[in-house]
Amino acid sequence: MAEAEFWYEFASSYSYPAAMRVEALAADRCVTLAWRPFLLGPLFAGQGWRDSPFNLFPAKGRYMWRDIERICSALGLPLKRPEPFPQNSLLAARVALALDDALRPAFSRAVYRVEFGEGRPIDAPATLGALLTEIAVPPEPLLARAVEDSNKAALKAQTARAIALGLPGAPCLTTADGEVFWGNDRLEQGLDWACAHESAVERERG
Amino acid sequence: MAEAEFWYEFASSYSYPAAMRVEALAADRCVTLAWRPFLLGPLFAGQGWRDSPFNLFPAKGRYMWRDIERICSALGLPLKRPEPFPQNSLLAARVALALDDALRPAFSRAVYRVEFGEGRPIDAPATLGALLTEIAVPPEPLLARAVEDSNKAALKAQTARAIALGLPGAPCLTTADGEVFWGNDRLEQGLDWACAHESAVERERG
Repeated sequence: MAEAEFWYEFASSYSYPAAMRVEALAADRCVTLAWRPFLLGPLFAGQGWRDSPFNLFPAKGRYMWRDIERICSALGLPLKRPEPFPQNSLLAARVALALDDALRPAFSRAVYRVEFGEGRPIDAPATLGALLTEIAVPPEPLLARAVEDSNKAALKAQTARAIALGLPGAPCLTTADGEVFWGNDRLEQGLDWACAHESAVERERG
Repeated sequence: MAEAEFWYEFASSYSYPAAMRVEALAADRCVTLAWRPFLLGPLFAGQGWRDSPFNLFPAKGRYMWRDIERICSALGLPLKRPEPFPQNSLLAARVALALDDALRPAFSRAVYRVEFGEGRPIDAPATLGALLTEIAVPPEPLLARAVEDSNKAALKAQTARAIALGLPGAPCLTTADGEVFWGNDRLEQGLDWACAHESAVERERG
């Protein structure tokens, strides 16, 4: 079974269609995915940015919103721009990380649906609690666990690993042999790579 | 016949595979292409950049070079990184613009082959003159025409139009109904759009 890691940031617009697409694409190729929420803020800060590049560079921002419209339209995904953009995604990322691996994809898709499908804020504990209830997770204990020091540290470590892997943004796929594929439009290529190079990785490990 | 404009910058790494691919993709879809060389410098200056974003933001740069390696490998295109990057592309753009429309694609592909396929500089009149000779254009009169004020002004005007159209970078495809598709990886999507929306544009014109 080939493996790949799916790196996403809840504030990232292109992570929305990617999160909605990636599980089916991976299943088609027999790739097992590990969902890796992380924060773009520290990565952007390392490039000197204190805001989303889509706000800092208006031509990129205008293009991105039109591009996302076309992408969501083609996929039949609802799109409503959240205000402000980017949303504060810190608590959502902590909650996602605190969840069991098996529950993380459904919760993450629910966050994106609220944020980019319905244009609603994602920073309130009540909002995230309602999404946990949707996936049959009691919200209070999980929300409490999400803000424990150990979980905060785990998110910092995951973000540091994203930077160490050389991720230039979100979403990304990374493969066991160290490749990085950046963008919703590279999911297929990244998963195909994971399949094609699986045996080589296995040989090296063996 | 559907139409699209192909916008490219000789210094742009992703414009290399795009220039090598776009003509065949357009022919497959019965799209007529207009090749539009322009300069990214003024566009980047508007975003506060005095260098390529791939140099200004190292994580993006490292990713881009690996990504380009994978792309060229999959296409069977040679790749040798030119030093320095980006190359000074001003004269090449002026020469390309001064050529007849029918000769511009072959000349442009030849420039990319030298620059990214062989890793050679593209700023010398002798280099560009040899490429003109390859396509059976007497080099001296064309090189002289390239640096006439009228041609310099035409390149400035073309670059201003690229900015006015909202191009966020290069390469791009633009369609008659005002859509912009950015990136080597969006050529198919842009050309498909040009085909699908041609009749709508024709109706509006009629």
